[in-house]
Amino acid sequence: MKPAHTFLEDIFDKLASVAPDVRGVRRDTYGKGEQAAHDLLKSVAKELSLDIATDAGANLYMTLTGKEPGLPVVMTGSHMDSVPAGGNFDGATGVIAALEIARRWRQDNYVPDRSLVVMAIRAEESAWFPVSYIGSKAAFNLLSASDLEAKRHDNGSLLKDGISSSGGDPQALLYGQPFLKAADIHAFLELHIEQGPCLLEQSDTVIGVVTGICGSTRYRYARLHGAYAHSGATPRLFRQDSVVALSDLVTRAQAMWAEQEAQGHLFTLTFGIFSTDADLASFCKISGDVAFSIDIRSTSSETLQVIETKLKELCLDVERKYGVSFEFGTHSGSKPAIMDETIQNEMLEAAADLSVGAQTMPSGAGHDTAIFANQGIRCGMLFVRNQNGSHCPEEFLDIADLRKAIDVFDVVLKQETSLSL
Amino acid sequence: MKPAHTFLEDIFDKLASVAPDVRGVRRDTYGKGEQAAHDLLKSVAKELSLDIATDAGANLYMTLTGKEPGLPVVMTGSHMDSVPAGGNFDGATGVIAALEIARRWRQDNYVPDRSLVVMAIRAEESAWFPVSYIGSKAAFNLLSASDLEAKRHDNGSLLKDGISSSGGDPQALLYGQPFLKAADIHAFLELHIEQGPCLLEQSDTVIGVVTGICGSTRYRYARLHGAYAHSGATPRLFRQDSVVALSDLVTRAQAMWAEQEAQGHLFTLTFGIFSTDADLASFCKISGDVAFSIDIRSTSSETLQVIETKLKELCLDVERKYGVSFEFGTHSGSKPAIMDETIQNEMLEAAADLSVGAQTMPSGAGHDTAIFANQGIRCGMLFVRNQNGSHCPEEFLDIADLRKAIDVFDVVLKQETSLSL
Repeated sequence: MKPAHTFLEDIFDKLASVAPDVRGVRRDTYGKGEQAAHDLLKSVAKELSLDIATDAGANLYMTLTGKEPGLPVVMTGSHMDSVPAGGNFDGATGVIAALEIARRWRQDNYVPDRSLVVMAIRAEESAWFPVSYIGSKAAFNLLSASDLEAKRHDNGSLLKDGISSSGGDPQALLYGQPFLKAADIHAFLELHIEQGPCLLEQSDTVIGVVTGICGSTRYRYARLHGAYAHSGATPRLFRQDSVVALSDLVTRAQAMWAEQEAQGHLFTLTFGIFSTDADLASFCKISGDVAFSIDIRSTSSETLQVIETKLKELCLDVERKYGVSFEFGTHSGSKPAIMDETIQNEMLEAAADLSVGAQTMPSGAGHDTAIFANQGIRCGMLFVRNQNGSHCPEEFLDIADLRKAIDVFDVVLKQETSLSL
Repeated sequence: MKPAHTFLEDIFDKLASVAPDVRGVRRDTYGKGEQAAHDLLKSVAKELSLDIATDAGANLYMTLTGKEPGLPVVMTGSHMDSVPAGGNFDGATGVIAALEIARRWRQDNYVPDRSLVVMAIRAEESAWFPVSYIGSKAAFNLLSASDLEAKRHDNGSLLKDGISSSGGDPQALLYGQPFLKAADIHAFLELHIEQGPCLLEQSDTVIGVVTGICGSTRYRYARLHGAYAHSGATPRLFRQDSVVALSDLVTRAQAMWAEQEAQGHLFTLTFGIFSTDADLASFCKISGDVAFSIDIRSTSSETLQVIETKLKELCLDVERKYGVSFEFGTHSGSKPAIMDETIQNEMLEAAADLSVGAQTMPSGAGHDTAIFANQGIRCGMLFVRNQNGSHCPEEFLDIADLRKAIDVFDVVLKQETSLSL
């Protein structure tokens, strides 16, 4: 067994070397890169004498069997795939941290009451296939037949074929028994790097205790229709300018956001796309049409509904004011997932005991934990601060920070696997 | 000679038939369509016993010689080319109206003091070559060597080759004497359909007396730079959202427009392009970059300057507020052209005498007349109302309206060519 001070560094180094991209790493979903990462984990799990299993979705389970193996288990883990030219830490950190805890427990001859199952989840990054949370859905047989026919963005290969060639069984995902059942799981915990704007870094805090994973309400392909007209010959009050009308909506939506936030509604509201027509628009024409997107996220279903309603009211007003019309297009969205309060408190208390700076925060991004939470399983998520954002080769995680987060996570996993606490 | 009641209709019908496009007409600049139109006009001019000449830019001059042929002449005319799939009336109406007046004068044996020169101008529509006012510039040798090397948008052929194949002489345009000299021209008058939002139609007015042709100040390729970030994980106050920042600018620019208009500044201000990056933007990302255009137009140079300054002040404020930066890119623009007040009054008085509804208005769109005005020549423009806009096959001009406009124009041309009035 490796000495403690090199175990983490070694795995991260090997992980980066087995699946390089032109820049950063390339752990492609159900492809060579993700497989190489899973193979590496298996060898580490064997070294730690963990029991190894895989399911029909080719997820990997590495179990440290407890004193009461018949009881519902405590699961922890994260995904191993990356975006193209991704960073080494997004996802993998949660699995490697769990293996480090298993290593510590083995070293200390610590045997928990409940078994601890470390799960290396497949296919979380929707950069490859246009389906969200493929791996964790597969574990509960939540994928549909049409999901399995999804095509990979870069090479057109089918999801079901990727699953097969990775050792999975797509037919069993549709017609077999699910590998995981909520009743068999006492809790699911995920450790992940913070993905967003480095709030932890800015507030000089090592870990974030996640209160909930945002759900969303989205219109990816909305349009606003006005009227094309000559930019020089059309006076102000005769215009149905789609750019002016949508700008007014965006501006008023920002004011509404500040107002609702002051009233306690926590959410994000983003118009990521705002685009006049590449063929029809011109510097010398008033634009008659603009494509745009709406993305509202919140950990509260009620807030999602309130904000969508407020936004639609603003749209109606914009339609009346400018003589334009909105066409929202297909609606999509996901349910928020609330993290278990007991687990949140365990995390906060452990951090306080160990003098590790911690703060509570929502997760704006989605995570596999949302799938477990929406199955009714008690869930917890711990963010560890990192530098340079995520989904890029520049991703950086200070191993000293990770060790502090692991110390906290270790305490919580001991509590969750214990029958006496 | 054709009877009066069919002359106009006949020419419009023939004109549409000699240069059809899949829809509408196709009188391509220095191409077959424009040439067919010029050939048709020549035959009409011969029928009317007008003197025919062409210049090195292949513009066509059809002269009804006056009693004092040595005096500065009165010129009238417009362009004969159209945009692709264009309407039959934009441009051509001004030439055909002038020929109708020549026909009336011949029929009445009316000989003016000054000669009347009807000019069929080449290449006004910049839809074909990326150079403005090619024909009227050619008449004054205002084209540059690089202008002559411009490539046609659809087939890449060179402007100089188009001029040659249409009977012009590109070398003479650079090194010869200009065909027209300001000192030889007493006045230039253009009749044109109203191009914009049909203000005349809306105000139930037959003709518009143009006060000036707008100049412009433009940034065709401006950008606003913010920062891309995760739409769910980035709180409101941590964003450098290019869409929000530019929307704020557009919204505040609208308020500034209303305010400046109330203070007497007449202009238009258009953001025709507002476009997030097709490759980088996504519904789930805050947009870090947006491309946009600015087009300010006014008949007053002072107003152009005031508004550009005000807009730049707003930009500075937006930069400070959102932590974003503007990159304006190449600036372009044109000088406003003021119409002669005497000619404006002659038009208004003639309209009143003939009980033809008239109103004064600026021209937001550019016209060849601007080239003549900027040579110091006294200029006038008359708009005639039309339906369904311009630059489209649906362009429609009621011939009864055109006859009223021609009646007014006839009176003004008589006044301008007369030594006694």
